[in-house]
Amino acid sequence: MNRIYNFSAGPAILPEPVLEEAAKGVLELGGSGMSILEISHRSKEYEKVHFEAQERLLRIMGLSADEYAVLFLQGGASMQFAMVAMNYLGEGDIADYVNAGEWGTKAIKEAKKVGLGTAREIASSADRNFSYIPKKFTVDPNARYLHITTNNTIEGTEWFDTPKTSVPLISDMSSDFLAVQRDFGSFSLIYAGAQKNIGPSGVTVAVARKSFLAQASDNVPTILSYKTYWEKDSLYNTPPCFAIFVVGLVAKWIEEQGGLAAVERKNKEKAGLLYHTLDELSGFYMPTVTAKEDRSLMNVTFRLQPRYEELEKEFLAGAKERKLDGLKGHRSVGGFRASIYNAFPIEGVRELTQYLREFAGTKG
Amino acid sequence: MNRIYNFSAGPAILPEPVLEEAAKGVLELGGSGMSILEISHRSKEYEKVHFEAQERLLRIMGLSADEYAVLFLQGGASMQFAMVAMNYLGEGDIADYVNAGEWGTKAIKEAKKVGLGTAREIASSADRNFSYIPKKFTVDPNARYLHITTNNTIEGTEWFDTPKTSVPLISDMSSDFLAVQRDFGSFSLIYAGAQKNIGPSGVTVAVARKSFLAQASDNVPTILSYKTYWEKDSLYNTPPCFAIFVVGLVAKWIEEQGGLAAVERKNKEKAGLLYHTLDELSGFYMPTVTAKEDRSLMNVTFRLQPRYEELEKEFLAGAKERKLDGLKGHRSVGGFRASIYNAFPIEGVRELTQYLREFAGTKG
Repeated sequence: MNRIYNFSAGPAILPEPVLEEAAKGVLELGGSGMSILEISHRSKEYEKVHFEAQERLLRIMGLSADEYAVLFLQGGASMQFAMVAMNYLGEGDIADYVNAGEWGTKAIKEAKKVGLGTAREIASSADRNFSYIPKKFTVDPNARYLHITTNNTIEGTEWFDTPKTSVPLISDMSSDFLAVQRDFGSFSLIYAGAQKNIGPSGVTVAVARKSFLAQASDNVPTILSYKTYWEKDSLYNTPPCFAIFVVGLVAKWIEEQGGLAAVERKNKEKAGLLYHTLDELSGFYMPTVTAKEDRSLMNVTFRLQPRYEELEKEFLAGAKERKLDGLKGHRSVGGFRASIYNAFPIEGVRELTQYLREFAGTKG
Repeated sequence: MNRIYNFSAGPAILPEPVLEEAAKGVLELGGSGMSILEISHRSKEYEKVHFEAQERLLRIMGLSADEYAVLFLQGGASMQFAMVAMNYLGEGDIADYVNAGEWGTKAIKEAKKVGLGTAREIASSADRNFSYIPKKFTVDPNARYLHITTNNTIEGTEWFDTPKTSVPLISDMSSDFLAVQRDFGSFSLIYAGAQKNIGPSGVTVAVARKSFLAQASDNVPTILSYKTYWEKDSLYNTPPCFAIFVVGLVAKWIEEQGGLAAVERKNKEKAGLLYHTLDELSGFYMPTVTAKEDRSLMNVTFRLQPRYEELEKEFLAGAKERKLDGLKGHRSVGGFRASIYNAFPIEGVRELTQYLREFAGTKG
């Protein structure tokens, strides 16, 4: 096939060997005589897929199954915004949120709507269009949890350090889960829609400290209770078997790459190359994230300098001709966005930097 | 591949041409240069998949897009149990439930837990192990809705007529959606986990009257509001793109078969053959549903006569040798269950009836 370079923010590019294995599984899972789409979620063959994926994820993160559980949920980060508040923000409770972008804004809004307690925004970078990560804030020591977003897909910022806090730390890691090394043991609950770095849309992975899961409210709908997923090994009802199967394949691929250290090294190389080129051509292009230490390794957002802005469409059309697809920025930010998740090949970044140079050379 | 006859209750057998198309899409969607697992849900190529699936479903059901909307949700019927009550069972409201099996029991339990109003069980067949459909009941004319389950996967009963009622009718059709002809226009809300007749697990299809959607509560989490899915065409956040893609392929397959009339005819032929054999061999086998008019076309449940019951394991082992898989009954009912959804071939039913005769002949 005539494969293009897919810079989409998500659903996003997946490793080719994963796609090949996934396609095989659709025809037949192992020697079962059945497709992964058909096989019972109570079968031994499926259970192997399910539990192996959980084990691989914990191993990649360096977490112990004694302390942490992997949950397979549905509904994306948007469902987690509600579930977090339903399960943990009880009457009289306070929860603190750091708001570093559009998704953080939604998380807080939902917690205010759904939680019985009080959701507080304790820091925000809305003052400068979410172009940096707000790192100065004071967490209420009695807060039920602190909620952050590690990578802001839309604005192109990423939080590399883990905030130190005495309260349980919850993070939406949808767009940089398993793309950089982190001290995952500092988190009480991590969740991530799969469709960026770890699989197709249709499954949300949560990794949670068991002692924190034990504290979740019982007074929530059964299917929205973290305890239901934990106690039933995410098999309370039929899980999204195929999406979990692909997550397992991606986890295997990550391990084969050399784990998170190797994956992070490649991601730094790709992003470094792109930011370096943009900075070099700063008379023509303009990265939207000026705080260099907060620049995302996943989503590189940039614009044309104001005097060249009318060339945006031309830039995108030229890119598409070279099979560089999905570069249009999110409608709320404008400009361009190159999403270069784990599976994005460095060759594609090189193609893009070459195009950046040529376009600037011709038009600038 | 060495394909077996998969009698699983769900996830369940899918048509082979659908599996082949699905596998191709995993490698590349059309000529897009991207996998259906990778392509943006905001792309033209994906939108075509999404909206075509909705159109096909309405066409198959004979419903108009002016009156009805198709929603793609996640979380299975279990999520719908909660969503129905959250969206429609407000303070002071009454909702009436007919309980014909384990799933109906769960639906009521969840409505009692989650709804702000009163969920009433107005009829139940629990008195005889849910071996029939309770059809005598009085619906409160002021009830917010009447909730039924058209097919009981576990117990093997099916409700063929549609109850006449003046209140909005809601049905869990998870296990017989698009398997029999129905007067779909009598329903205000239909929902179905896809993994029986219409696709893989990971997507729940809802078909709802728009005037009923307009009445849903606004006071629910955004992602659990039917209005969110309706107003945003099920693209509020990233949908389970692959599962929806497969639902579209199955819908296409149903249309190619000749629509619901043709599909129903085949289903009646398959189920008729199986029930006929079981009734003929009634000295040895025993269908668990004695009310013949309520026998499911989808899930044929039966046992060995009490004096032969110790042969259950032997029966299952012999079946597996002949590649007749997934015949073990649900743990709450015991015995056997042959699930013969739309895609199950009549040849497989013939194989099973032949085995039923031979086993009874040898052991009876």
